[in-house]
Amino acid sequence: MARKAGIIGGGVIGGGWAARFLLNGWDVAVFDPDPEAPRKVGEVIANAKRALPALSDGPMPPEGKLTFAATITEAVEGADYIQESVSERLDLKHRVFAQIQQVAPDTPIGSSTSGFKPSELQQNAANPATIFVAHPFNPVYLLPLAEIVPSAKSDPALIEGAKETLREIGMFPLHIRKEIDAHIADRFLEAVWREALWLVKDGIATTEEIDEAIRMGFGLRWGQMGLFETYRIAGGEAGMKHFMAQFGPCLTWPWTKLMDVPEFNDELVDLIAGQSDAQSGHHSIRELERIRDQNLIGFLKVLKDRNWGAGKVLLDHDARRRQAMPNPTPDHAQPIEMARLHVLPGWIDYNGHMTESRYLFASSETVDAFLRHIGADIAYVGTGYSYYTAETHIMHLGEAKLGEALTGTVQVLHADEKRLHVFVRIVKGDSVVATLEQMLLHVDMKAGKTCAAPAAILDRLLPIAEAHKALPRPEAAGRHVGQKK
Amino acid sequence: MARKAGIIGGGVIGGGWAARFLLNGWDVAVFDPDPEAPRKVGEVIANAKRALPALSDGPMPPEGKLTFAATITEAVEGADYIQESVSERLDLKHRVFAQIQQVAPDTPIGSSTSGFKPSELQQNAANPATIFVAHPFNPVYLLPLAEIVPSAKSDPALIEGAKETLREIGMFPLHIRKEIDAHIADRFLEAVWREALWLVKDGIATTEEIDEAIRMGFGLRWGQMGLFETYRIAGGEAGMKHFMAQFGPCLTWPWTKLMDVPEFNDELVDLIAGQSDAQSGHHSIRELERIRDQNLIGFLKVLKDRNWGAGKVLLDHDARRRQAMPNPTPDHAQPIEMARLHVLPGWIDYNGHMTESRYLFASSETVDAFLRHIGADIAYVGTGYSYYTAETHIMHLGEAKLGEALTGTVQVLHADEKRLHVFVRIVKGDSVVATLEQMLLHVDMKAGKTCAAPAAILDRLLPIAEAHKALPRPEAAGRHVGQKK
Repeated sequence: MARKAGIIGGGVIGGGWAARFLLNGWDVAVFDPDPEAPRKVGEVIANAKRALPALSDGPMPPEGKLTFAATITEAVEGADYIQESVSERLDLKHRVFAQIQQVAPDTPIGSSTSGFKPSELQQNAANPATIFVAHPFNPVYLLPLAEIVPSAKSDPALIEGAKETLREIGMFPLHIRKEIDAHIADRFLEAVWREALWLVKDGIATTEEIDEAIRMGFGLRWGQMGLFETYRIAGGEAGMKHFMAQFGPCLTWPWTKLMDVPEFNDELVDLIAGQSDAQSGHHSIRELERIRDQNLIGFLKVLKDRNWGAGKVLLDHDARRRQAMPNPTPDHAQPIEMARLHVLPGWIDYNGHMTESRYLFASSETVDAFLRHIGADIAYVGTGYSYYTAETHIMHLGEAKLGEALTGTVQVLHADEKRLHVFVRIVKGDSVVATLEQMLLHVDMKAGKTCAAPAAILDRLLPIAEAHKALPRPEAAGRHVGQKK
Repeated sequence: MARKAGIIGGGVIGGGWAARFLLNGWDVAVFDPDPEAPRKVGEVIANAKRALPALSDGPMPPEGKLTFAATITEAVEGADYIQESVSERLDLKHRVFAQIQQVAPDTPIGSSTSGFKPSELQQNAANPATIFVAHPFNPVYLLPLAEIVPSAKSDPALIEGAKETLREIGMFPLHIRKEIDAHIADRFLEAVWREALWLVKDGIATTEEIDEAIRMGFGLRWGQMGLFETYRIAGGEAGMKHFMAQFGPCLTWPWTKLMDVPEFNDELVDLIAGQSDAQSGHHSIRELERIRDQNLIGFLKVLKDRNWGAGKVLLDHDARRRQAMPNPTPDHAQPIEMARLHVLPGWIDYNGHMTESRYLFASSETVDAFLRHIGADIAYVGTGYSYYTAETHIMHLGEAKLGEALTGTVQVLHADEKRLHVFVRIVKGDSVVATLEQMLLHVDMKAGKTCAAPAAILDRLLPIAEAHKALPRPEAAGRHVGQKK
């Protein structure tokens, strides 16, 4: 039987918790007196359904059952886990806990509070031992972090059980050993927020400039290594102590308006350098550099695919370069070179070679460039017509490895009004690593059937097909899988 | 003719600048009195060559020429752009600028300084107008940000030219209109650093716990939207003003040790809300949420592919789920279902359908799972043997769209000691969207040729092949591209 989560508070955070439990197979009962809560929670869950399954490389469990409870009692009765995400008012949270504990005195109650300490949450509670901080980050259904903060009154076994529950729904419970206002992450967010308010107020930068200063630079680093591991690398071969010696003196300089700084002494340097060794010492600085670089390449490529943030800079840079290096008019008496690619880190399989689907990807890039060349570009697709691939035959003849340069060429075997039959060679240096024979059909996308291509395209395509008739027919053309040579 | 960059200072930052210019086709002359500089710069360039080309979807320009100059004069003579990255000592920087301007009084000189203001850098200079801050972020060859800070004495046309130069080498020059200690980004880094030192010193958290608190949560957000756009979303439909009203009061609370806060009043709220509207108002909150989510999915998938940071959490979660839902023993009297996939956002092409190379990817996942099923798993590949795909034939029969669930089944057409001939169906609901016929060969990877598979594998494979002989032979098997039906 599915387990049950009681979710008290149905805003963006409560809705995010509901979505995470639900999509991980838990039944969820939400209580929120706001009559708009079902709509709001529904919208968060709709977002989550579009997003969370994309992170799973296996089947998702059957979705749990969502109900909206009329009372707190109804929401938490029989629950295996309870999460409170009401407004940040301590009196309100105390009232909610009191109502919960009338019916569920022994059930773990995590609070999404940004700032209150667990000992504050537990004040006057019937059973303080079950109440703790479980502070998530928006969007709750995607970001793994949940700060788990117990107090001295907490039940250690219950806390371990709650951490296990959060792991089961795909989260990363970070156990914070000493309670403190705003836990850990929000202390950083608050420091940055305060400095940002100064910069805007003093007219140094706008909100947009500040966002660019973050997401074009250190923001990209922080998604993968955080603060200290990043600085360990910055220290270079001399490591963390070198970094601290270099930047220690800045603590007393007006590099931020936030001047309440700890004393910078050998004790602090040793403490941090020692912890950094324990954290990252099993990787050399060179290894960390390469790990960092491959992570950053991955992030940057994602943003490039999405034409967003730093990815826009990369797309602009490509466009600039294309302009600076114009393509010569292709020679139609030969197979036409239509694409140049480098084998990227994400294209490598466990054999250390380019993974087989990337040969088809390279061919698609080549054929897409050819289609643009004959006028069937993205603007043309926008008019409702396109070339679809009906059939493909691939021969694997060699291997491509990380960083190697590949080119893709197109030979037209046959073309008529509706059909485009091409032979693609993926070439590395002097050798052909793969050939791909494809039949493409010109399609009316709305009607969902083939139709004749317009004159504007045929006028460009047919002369190439005519010229290519003079080329020798490739041996692999017309071959079927397993055919004797 | 290639342009020339003079790079003064050959540490991690100077080396990063050298790499960026070089790989973008500029000649580079480096001056650094450290006899180790050529080795150090060489290592940074080696890292950059492994990384920077992966960001380009077109051919890279021919690499420039790298030289190590014996003097500053030699390094900057004839340079079109000069970048200074020596230690953070103002007297040293002044001496370097004086030497540069003896031979290159009119050439732009960017300084990599983390903290000095341009007016400080320009003190006593022969030509203050050419000296400005161009502050990059490590690794300089990957991160686009360069903070460009002029002073009142700067030449506006020269600054615009320098920004254009940085764009040409793929950077994002962020023009900072008012000079301030530590510019913008480093003020945030310094604030976070100060707070982090407190947390470590007070024993609240270790360096590792702090890094997790960043990279499992808000660090992932900041690589794509920064601070204000993220908070605009957090404000929900009510936007930035709502967010500020909610978190304004916290400014006076001890949520960080950094208590020097600006006065929180309507004027500040209006200023920020207005700037946020100008920055992000062309997207609705719902749109921003979806953009954010797709970016985060991309980042998280990258980390998952790399088994790093938040990606480790996702891999653990998949493994947990697999354990909780054990595969039933497959029924060998039918094509065997070997994979279940959801169509992910990155798999969609400009037609709105799953892009063709992903059908082969889905088939690879299916066949890989089958190979694991017969014992040819990753541990087996580690012994030096593997199955390689020699040949593939694909029929596209239907379309798959974002989020749809697909399953992949395997029918063995024939198997012997060396060969494995399979027929894969990619199924959506009741319909087959693609079929793939493949010939795989068992390979001795070291010798680079086919060889017989061991008994341990054949004992599992051959009975399946025997059982599948009873299945009807698929019509598409043995078909060649363009064959009449």
